[in-house]
Amino acid sequence: MTEKKIRLGIIGYGNLGKGAVLAIRQNPDLALTGIFTRRDPSTIDASSPVYAVSELERFRDAIDVCLLCGGSARDLDRQGPDAVRHFHTVDSFDTHARIPAYYETMDAAARASGHLALISVGWDPGLFSLIRLFEEAVLPVGDTVTFWGKGVSQGHSDAIRQIPGVAAAVQYTIPLDDAIDRVRQGDTLSSRERHRRDCFVVLEDGADAESITQRIVTMPHYFSDYDTTVTFVSREELAARHSGMPHGGRVMRRGQTTPGTHQSIDFSLKLDSNPEFTASILVAAARAVHRMATGGQTGAITLFDVPPGYLSARSAEDLRKSLL
Amino acid sequence: MTEKKIRLGIIGYGNLGKGAVLAIRQNPDLALTGIFTRRDPSTIDASSPVYAVSELERFRDAIDVCLLCGGSARDLDRQGPDAVRHFHTVDSFDTHARIPAYYETMDAAARASGHLALISVGWDPGLFSLIRLFEEAVLPVGDTVTFWGKGVSQGHSDAIRQIPGVAAAVQYTIPLDDAIDRVRQGDTLSSRERHRRDCFVVLEDGADAESITQRIVTMPHYFSDYDTTVTFVSREELAARHSGMPHGGRVMRRGQTTPGTHQSIDFSLKLDSNPEFTASILVAAARAVHRMATGGQTGAITLFDVPPGYLSARSAEDLRKSLL
Repeated sequence: MTEKKIRLGIIGYGNLGKGAVLAIRQNPDLALTGIFTRRDPSTIDASSPVYAVSELERFRDAIDVCLLCGGSARDLDRQGPDAVRHFHTVDSFDTHARIPAYYETMDAAARASGHLALISVGWDPGLFSLIRLFEEAVLPVGDTVTFWGKGVSQGHSDAIRQIPGVAAAVQYTIPLDDAIDRVRQGDTLSSRERHRRDCFVVLEDGADAESITQRIVTMPHYFSDYDTTVTFVSREELAARHSGMPHGGRVMRRGQTTPGTHQSIDFSLKLDSNPEFTASILVAAARAVHRMATGGQTGAITLFDVPPGYLSARSAEDLRKSLL
Repeated sequence: MTEKKIRLGIIGYGNLGKGAVLAIRQNPDLALTGIFTRRDPSTIDASSPVYAVSELERFRDAIDVCLLCGGSARDLDRQGPDAVRHFHTVDSFDTHARIPAYYETMDAAARASGHLALISVGWDPGLFSLIRLFEEAVLPVGDTVTFWGKGVSQGHSDAIRQIPGVAAAVQYTIPLDDAIDRVRQGDTLSSRERHRRDCFVVLEDGADAESITQRIVTMPHYFSDYDTTVTFVSREELAARHSGMPHGGRVMRRGQTTPGTHQSIDFSLKLDSNPEFTASILVAAARAVHRMATGGQTGAITLFDVPPGYLSARSAEDLRKSLL
């Protein structure tokens, strides 16, 4: 690799940010300039340089693309527009229902500053979205069904943690028994019929369990459409039994090219670490952003707009020879 | 849909061309101008207009994109460069080892005439290639393994049929027992260790079975690297027992984001009709070619160069809202 490395900044050093540090190390064409945090940098133990997020702007000439590693339920609404005023960005905004509004906000901010913002990257939204698009484009007559889990949803866990009185929380998305087989046979089931959501919550001292349960199970977009159980546990139990972050899921389409001629496409993930995998996708996406921004593109885009080859470290010629 | 329909021409009316007619009917934004054949058009029974391929050039203003439905072992080396002199094209060139040379030929011809040529579209090369790229880009440390079958390979059947003395042939690619499970456990197996190839061949009168068997099993790229069996059958038996065209396959990657943290991606197809499914991909690809060519792009490209959203009939805004 004789080209200069692409220099990345990580904003936010939670699970996703930590995964991004690891992912960058697996890609020899990428380099990490620094981690930027709202916390006191001196309190953070990382093998890479850590700075206060307030210092970010002075790294304008030292960072090619910023990875926004905040959660969409809280951070990205501000972090996204702030960062794209000075940098090209990749984020994992994952509140599906609010994506169109977030897109408009980021598109306006990115166009105004002449930057490129690739939003909603990860595996859902992200890889699963791409698969849904390919499946529908090549099999226009048919049904696509997505399963999530069993696994911890960062976005849903984060949403619970925003409720006043909640000290900590982990949410598992669990596909319901027999639903995958029923879909293979051609049934179409609602998301609620395919999954349930199990929440393990640590209360702050004096918080009211009943009202917090109601806040969770009625939360729109996140829980109100699902069978949701809430179990209150101690901080110790949460740490001991719910600290792993496995996940997985499946996108299936069963279509017909002529009546009775069935064609099935099945894409599935089995992940030991959801944040490390999600971060790996953000890092590959940063490579694409750098290339497209270098070509002059500005505004907000999604993975639907990215020529797949831009995600790979290989040249177009090598891709045709090796992977086509 | 208020936009004008995209007008397609089909060159070659074998299994793939017939599948393309069916696929176009499933897409309301696409229209079929005509089928072009080297045979006498009056001998072809199709519900759409059929013309001699020699008439193609006079349809320059009536066709937006030509679907090249010949086989790569025989037709596309000529059909591709000929067609792209006058039209934007999509083809399914599938001899993996010869793709770089075919790309160069098509790129030069397309640039010279100011057209766009999307080559090697289908499911392998095609959808499987895209999955291999995504898998490797997001999990750079790991191994990707492709399985094909059980199913009829059009390209391999076609290659056998080119041998003098062969009247008809069908080739099945068959994944070997237990190989999928071994790959799931982390083994890497060669293509030869994962599959065998079974050929059913009808001889022409007076043809020599032994020499034809040798021609098949030693054929480079197609058979020489595989355990291949050749069974000679009557024309009647081939028609009765080997006329279906099911297929399928699987692309798996098992990677690690940190040592011991495994992340697995699994993409699989189960197809009642290989040519109808392949044709459905070509038809979606033609939509992308029309959009990219309208934007001024020329030369040869592959699916690695196509922003995925261009494959879909939905608008970018609708895609973000509905599929992201």
